[in-house]
Amino acid sequence: MDRTKAATTPNISSATEKELLTKEINEQGEKVRTAKTKNASKDVIDAEVKKLLALKAKYKEVTGTDFPVAGRGSSSSAKKTTEKGTKTQKTELKNASKTETPTGAVKKQTRLGLEATKEDNLPEWYTQVITKGELIEYYDVSGCYILRHWSFAIWKYIRSWFDGEITKMGVKECYFPMFVSKAALEKEKTHIADFAPEVAWVTKSGESDLAEPIAVRPTSETVMYPAYAKWVQSYRDLPIRLNQWNNVVRWEFKHPQPFLRTREFLWQEGHSAFANKSEAEKEVLDILELYAQVYTNLMAIPVVKGRKTEKEKFAGGDYTTTVEAFISASGRAIQGATSHHLGQNFSKMFEIVFEDPETQQKEFAWQNSWGITTRTIGVMIMVHSDNQGLVLPPHIACIQAIIVPCGITVNTKEDEREQLMQSCKNLERQLSAKGIRCEGDYRDNYSPGWKFNHWELKGVPIRIEVGPKDMKANQIVAVRRDSGEKLILALDDVDSKIQQLLETIHDSMLAKAQSDLVQHTKITKNWSDFCMFLDQKNILLSPFCGETSCEDKIKADSARDQEAEPGAPAMGAKSLCIPFDQPAAITVADKCIHPSCTNKPKFYTLFGRSY
Amino acid sequence: MDRTKAATTPNISSATEKELLTKEINEQGEKVRTAKTKNASKDVIDAEVKKLLALKAKYKEVTGTDFPVAGRGSSSSAKKTTEKGTKTQKTELKNASKTETPTGAVKKQTRLGLEATKEDNLPEWYTQVITKGELIEYYDVSGCYILRHWSFAIWKYIRSWFDGEITKMGVKECYFPMFVSKAALEKEKTHIADFAPEVAWVTKSGESDLAEPIAVRPTSETVMYPAYAKWVQSYRDLPIRLNQWNNVVRWEFKHPQPFLRTREFLWQEGHSAFANKSEAEKEVLDILELYAQVYTNLMAIPVVKGRKTEKEKFAGGDYTTTVEAFISASGRAIQGATSHHLGQNFSKMFEIVFEDPETQQKEFAWQNSWGITTRTIGVMIMVHSDNQGLVLPPHIACIQAIIVPCGITVNTKEDEREQLMQSCKNLERQLSAKGIRCEGDYRDNYSPGWKFNHWELKGVPIRIEVGPKDMKANQIVAVRRDSGEKLILALDDVDSKIQQLLETIHDSMLAKAQSDLVQHTKITKNWSDFCMFLDQKNILLSPFCGETSCEDKIKADSARDQEAEPGAPAMGAKSLCIPFDQPAAITVADKCIHPSCTNKPKFYTLFGRSY
Repeated sequence: MDRTKAATTPNISSATEKELLTKEINEQGEKVRTAKTKNASKDVIDAEVKKLLALKAKYKEVTGTDFPVAGRGSSSSAKKTTEKGTKTQKTELKNASKTETPTGAVKKQTRLGLEATKEDNLPEWYTQVITKGELIEYYDVSGCYILRHWSFAIWKYIRSWFDGEITKMGVKECYFPMFVSKAALEKEKTHIADFAPEVAWVTKSGESDLAEPIAVRPTSETVMYPAYAKWVQSYRDLPIRLNQWNNVVRWEFKHPQPFLRTREFLWQEGHSAFANKSEAEKEVLDILELYAQVYTNLMAIPVVKGRKTEKEKFAGGDYTTTVEAFISASGRAIQGATSHHLGQNFSKMFEIVFEDPETQQKEFAWQNSWGITTRTIGVMIMVHSDNQGLVLPPHIACIQAIIVPCGITVNTKEDEREQLMQSCKNLERQLSAKGIRCEGDYRDNYSPGWKFNHWELKGVPIRIEVGPKDMKANQIVAVRRDSGEKLILALDDVDSKIQQLLETIHDSMLAKAQSDLVQHTKITKNWSDFCMFLDQKNILLSPFCGETSCEDKIKADSARDQEAEPGAPAMGAKSLCIPFDQPAAITVADKCIHPSCTNKPKFYTLFGRSY
Repeated sequence: MDRTKAATTPNISSATEKELLTKEINEQGEKVRTAKTKNASKDVIDAEVKKLLALKAKYKEVTGTDFPVAGRGSSSSAKKTTEKGTKTQKTELKNASKTETPTGAVKKQTRLGLEATKEDNLPEWYTQVITKGELIEYYDVSGCYILRHWSFAIWKYIRSWFDGEITKMGVKECYFPMFVSKAALEKEKTHIADFAPEVAWVTKSGESDLAEPIAVRPTSETVMYPAYAKWVQSYRDLPIRLNQWNNVVRWEFKHPQPFLRTREFLWQEGHSAFANKSEAEKEVLDILELYAQVYTNLMAIPVVKGRKTEKEKFAGGDYTTTVEAFISASGRAIQGATSHHLGQNFSKMFEIVFEDPETQQKEFAWQNSWGITTRTIGVMIMVHSDNQGLVLPPHIACIQAIIVPCGITVNTKEDEREQLMQSCKNLERQLSAKGIRCEGDYRDNYSPGWKFNHWELKGVPIRIEVGPKDMKANQIVAVRRDSGEKLILALDDVDSKIQQLLETIHDSMLAKAQSDLVQHTKITKNWSDFCMFLDQKNILLSPFCGETSCEDKIKADSARDQEAEPGAPAMGAKSLCIPFDQPAAITVADKCIHPSCTNKPKFYTLFGRSY
């Protein structure tokens, strides 16, 4: 595979170039440190930092991963070392209260634990959480990543719940082709203008050129609506409410990041057509509420519901509603999912018309489209995970409770060992019968301590420790992943207790994230406070006129110089949404937040740096 | 959309060209008829027929649909007419025992019923079944079709059942990128040789050329196995058993046909790696058994399980096992699903190695891959559907029983009408509570007769008629879609009776298909019988040596001249499989079926024309 390297297909094992870059980055890092310790002028430091960042970006481009924390191997290079047989025997047994020698021979004790912190190096921390937590494997096509079972399972829970809800609402599932002809794609001009630069084109099959290039769907409005036009003749053919779960491609050139910004991603896209506007508008909000529930009830993440500004709305639509989440580690907001009212814009372009039963006039259908993507998983990681690794919210955890038999030593008799295993398996059955997703880790080639770390890295909400002493005392030890809290639980009704504990963990994770959001949401009418709060990693609620030109100025004028922290870019503030829940009414005395704006403000708008 | 027409993107509404071709085809058809009635020589007739077929192929290329039966509009042109407001008021009320005037005004009575028969024009019949049955909508990219809810629902039942079974076996779900780099794709030479001509290449994003073309997966061996190589170090990392449900693209240039041969299709692909061969080989057969059950238990279709010959096996694998179905209407077999043992072929190419715990030697993993596609739906249509339209096997029917209120006339009193509706709704609830997928058709703008035809076209297994007289007699009328049989059922335990009836229908559909298969499977050791049986639309079981060169000869020498029937091409016989269940042992006296072959036959092999 070493021959595949190219601008668009970086190869993570391209050894020579990587080594060269590593050397250059280390040297440049030294220059930055020297400049800083010698109190060089801001200009000088900035220039050195700029060079460093450029080198790191190059490194990322070539290897597909962020440059690791100095002095330590990146997760992928550590993996390579292990593969080549020089296995590190060092184990990091944090929290390992029971570190007895396991009965089986310890054949493989790979390096566990994260080697970067969320506070100090967010990008490297993220990379390690997703690789060591076995969510993602890197891939040799840039911007594309492998969703391993541990992350796909999360998507499956989201899909299953959301699909059930929309089915109850009367939405039907279908599948439209992934290819779209140029003519159909370009039918709605505003829409295509937004997507055109990111469209991937198939131009060849085998060795032959196609007569005309065919696009891979970036979204399916233009794929689906010609068929809607065929199906709709009478108002009785409406509403049409269809949904599909599929993959779409947007060949972005911004820095890709697993889950958060990828060239191919999975999502659902719902597309509906109604005979009247009010029905369509009701659906927009019903769906948005379901999206909010995906975040809140499944992933323990609070969101702000609102409407996008004209600048940020879906191209070609009338208006866009959104749920926005907040990632306090970076101080950046992230769009969670969007539900668009398209008005009659697409129905006019695609001629989705019906005869009004009363007036006998031709009417254009009112349309919506709405989608939620695998980005959800990235938001979940960013919000909840910590320096021990992934923290899975209980409702979407593939394994909710992991049972680890403990306390076996070289002196443990065989029948005691057997009895302990039997108790663990009984417990596993009892919890499973209650609907708790539960497994036992009975591997004999790993120590309990290794297992504790392993399942912590993978974010399992509850670890259950059972040892001979616990058995005698008719109890188990339950350890919460989110807080580290240890609870000793009597075996009576233990299934109900664990079930309750899972709910407690969910509530507690949600409350923590909610408090984070509230603390970092600053209401201000003052521009210099706005900029200050922004730089302190907050999001802002300020009166705003709603004009695109003004929004451009806010973004440009709130941008700060780049500092030497990748992942905390000093971009300007974008509008995130106009929250449905306004913090106050706009008064006559209020001014638009941008100091040069003379328009009357219309509403409080949520601003912030965003993904 | 009229401007998009090109060799690869035919446009179904390209009016002028279509009209011209229609004229030419009709004229050429007249020439063929004249030649035949005048008893012209075979050569002359053949030449005219050849021209006719070429024109029809052109028509298909331009319009995306088969040329309709002479004198009638094709389904799509009929649709167009309706769209343009000249709605035909003619209704075809076959089987409409209750044709009372409905209470609501009849606003829309579109043309129902098929206008081609399975016996006389299989391709046109198929097109009408899938469009009028609302399974498929045509699309403006050639070889791509829209799976409407009515067909997607079938796929969802198959997916749900199969996914549950493999999950129980320990297979995990994941998602790998749809794009594959050239280097990875071409790593296994035999494999890529087979797929190369059909690979779709992305070469541009927006206006820019990619540095290197990227392939759209035709299958994911080459996408997944580099990751397997990273994950496997020790025998403890095995087995890896992953599955994904996704879309793949094979840009074939053979005649595309919805479900049966499409350029994009949906499937699941399972990929596993084991430490030893026997475990891998067991999985191959376990999966094949599940595939057989998908056909037999879900779709009421019998299949023949067996192994593919060397000529027909999966490129790059050790051997392929298959389930083969039979379509008596065309006399052609069709591959149902395949489960491949890859041996160590791919593991050697991709270096999926582990250390043997006993010998400390490096060993290559033993691998399988297996898949079942949306082709299943096409097989189901071809096997079961009839001249009234689709016939859905009960286990995968989206609606298993449709309730139609009947017997309402202009003289029916409002309270009687209300009471009838209430009875129907009660029945609907009762059946739903039993787990029967049941709906009531309460639309007041269609007559019961129209509804009967509508739900017959859509293949719902049981129609339940409830009228005022039935209510008084405490009974309902149940009509079987598969046989047309009418049953009068007393209301006591009606839910159990309907449930039982669904099973009876399933069994009866399976038995009918089984009898069809048995009747059309001819065992022969004689080459001229072989050719005769083949031309009589049978499949053949004959002793065969297994050599690829001999198989090529069998195919070439059993081919017959083309006749003027599209859909019954006189291709030669391919080997379908070497059935696990052999009809007899090969004896010393047996010879290989091809008259010129001097090799010893090894096994009875199933031969036939195939899709």
